[in-house]
Amino acid sequence: MHQRARRYQIAVCGDSEIQNKEQGEIAYAIGREIARQGCTLIQGGRGGVMEAAARGCLECGGLTVAILPSASFSEANRYSQVVIPTGLGWTRNSLVVLAADGVIAIGGRGGTLSEIAYAWMYGKPVVAITGEPSIQGWSSILAGKKIDDRRDDIILSANSAEEAVKILIKEINNRREKMG
Amino acid sequence: MHQRARRYQIAVCGDSEIQNKEQGEIAYAIGREIARQGCTLIQGGRGGVMEAAARGCLECGGLTVAILPSASFSEANRYSQVVIPTGLGWTRNSLVVLAADGVIAIGGRGGTLSEIAYAWMYGKPVVAITGEPSIQGWSSILAGKKIDDRRDDIILSANSAEEAVKILIKEINNRREKMG
Amino acid sequence: MHQRARRYQIAVCGDSEIQNKEQGEIAYAIGREIARQGCTLIQGGRGGVMEAAARGCLECGGLTVAILPSASFSEANRYSQVVIPTGLGWTRNSLVVLAADGVIAIGGRGGTLSEIAYAWMYGKPVVAITGEPSIQGWSSILAGKKIDDRRDDIILSANSAEEAVKILIKEINNRREKMG
Amino acid sequence: MHQRARRYQIAVCGDSEIQNKEQGEIAYAIGREIARQGCTLIQGGRGGVMEAAARGCLECGGLTVAILPSASFSEANRYSQVVIPTGLGWTRNSLVVLAADGVIAIGGRGGTLSEIAYAWMYGKPVVAITGEPSIQGWSSILAGKKIDDRRDDIILSANSAEEAVKILIKEINNRREKMG
Repeated sequence: MHQRARRYQIAVCGDSEIQNKEQGEIAYAIGREIARQGCTLIQGGRGGVMEAAARGCLECGGLTVAILPSASFSEANRYSQVVIPTGLGWTRNSLVVLAADGVIAIGGRGGTLSEIAYAWMYGKPVVAITGEPSIQGWSSILAGKKIDDRRDDIILSANSAEEAVKILIKEINNRREKMG
Repeated sequence: MHQRARRYQIAVCGDSEIQNKEQGEIAYAIGREIARQGCTLIQGGRGGVMEAAARGCLECGGLTVAILPSASFSEANRYSQVVIPTGLGWTRNSLVVLAADGVIAIGGRGGTLSEIAYAWMYGKPVVAITGEPSIQGWSSILAGKKIDDRRDDIILSANSAEEAVKILIKEINNRREKMG
Repeated sequence: MHQRARRYQIAVCGDSEIQNKEQGEIAYAIGREIARQGCTLIQGGRGGVMEAAARGCLECGGLTVAILPSASFSEANRYSQVVIPTGLGWTRNSLVVLAADGVIAIGGRGGTLSEIAYAWMYGKPVVAITGEPSIQGWSSILAGKKIDDRRDDIILSANSAEEAVKILIKEINNRREKMG
Repeated sequence: MHQRARRYQIAVCGDSEIQNKEQGEIAYAIGREIARQGCTLIQGGRGGVMEAAARGCLECGGLTVAILPSASFSEANRYSQVVIPTGLGWTRNSLVVLAADGVIAIGGRGGTLSEIAYAWMYGKPVVAITGEPSIQGWSSILAGKKIDDRRDDIILSANSAEEAVKILIKEINNRREKMG
């Protein structure tokens, strides 16, 4: 065994309560696509976007990881195969992002905003899902924009699951090549 | 000794490098005003806005606390009387906000954005300093706005040090009264 | 899919440098046994006992998770399929334990001692590997003892891989039954 | 202002419920002595040894800092002038130690044991209070011993408040001189 065992880890961030049918569907489809591309899903372990993505990923044979705010396994959604109960409360948002090679944001409120800010600071590629009126919140507001001037790139945007995962993986590959 | 020994703790957040003379001056003036009002200053312990506020507060006889990203005391600016070296990296942003009864943001990039998002999530009152062209960044963008719909209030705005500290303390008092 | 997707997660803790051949062999054998029993391995992601257990578990088809001190994926040993780079430094020891249904300690220095202390505080069952002269350190010292009087049980002891995993899973099952 | 504003920060660790009159008295006396020596007291913000030390320090005009497990100011004992509510649960034990130039342990159960282990790992000097039958727990067990072989020194021991603070400050000074 000479190669590293780890696959790309993609975090999906968004509302802990589904805002509308379309948001739930795209989160689920992104989970499926992450599995199809052989990547591991990182999510916050709770409901809404996190649970929909985990269900999609698990149903397609992918590996699903939950990084929870609470210290208890029982808080995790039922589609999480590996559960990391941090006991850190919302401070865990930073850890969700650190555990990702790249981040996909779908809608989102304050928690998702903190995760996008961290992803930007940590130099991780971010894809924000757009598509009014279904997808509102911080992914729509920040798609195509910069958080500050520390990076040359922008927050990427996509309005389908396939496109989101495809451009994120491409961006992760680009960075790996640059880093040698 | 029947009363609690703690005074209000006010966090000042903003760029770790001063963007222009006006930003440094208002950070310094806010530090002074926090001391005059008998409050304790919480800041991230590094340069820029954090250091300017700490210098102002210390020079006026106030108490200054640094909550550092690194695990080493030596990273702290010289105006910090109490230094908490967390070793958490930027994950410490959440702790800066948790340690505050209220938050004042002055300009700011990704780190400040994460702190405003946390302050909103934790239900802490936030005052954002405005005043183009000197004060840009996330405090200007978010002043007067809401991060999401979980709260009835907005991010307050102020364009002077006195006003910022005054309205923040008023807001902290209001919340204490409501909570009985 | 009605059942939860998660399997038991067992943490293996011990020296980040192998002290002698026997310690490496038992760590490796425990990793294999964890896989055979259908459990997921949690470990600190670094060398020594962590790497040996991860190699054993991975070679037997088990799932291996690393919870790293650093913020970088590259610090992980090559046998970790899921990598959680916390950026918390040694503060992450608490998270390794929180992520486990039960803990096995093999030798160990200060870091392992902190993990045993946390496991005790969090109410997790702990099995300490004994067997002088090969296995020294904190697992030998604390086997069969109590950390304090908050629990009715003791730190369990075992001197083989099979026994260690067997009694730990039995203890985890017992607790689940008691909790209903 | 050319000098740094910070004074030595000394952490006092021990049971969150006083075990007997003598333990409470020595914790209180150590708090007083920390104040007399012009140092800042770091403690976990809860009851027992932490509260007794904070009361002693505050009554002698010293500065008292609480680093709390919970996210709420209201958990702090009333003698804490600066309160850092981390929301990290017992994971905060690592931060209590990181915030100290040196650590004094008085009795103690699992939490104190984790703090002594961290202090050892972080290279901080530790003084353990001894004196059977009043002072039992981990400070008595580990006084005069080593946690592992990473350090040349031992856990120092003292059986009076004056001696404990004196030898700890001496040890902190020694290290500062060595580091230039």
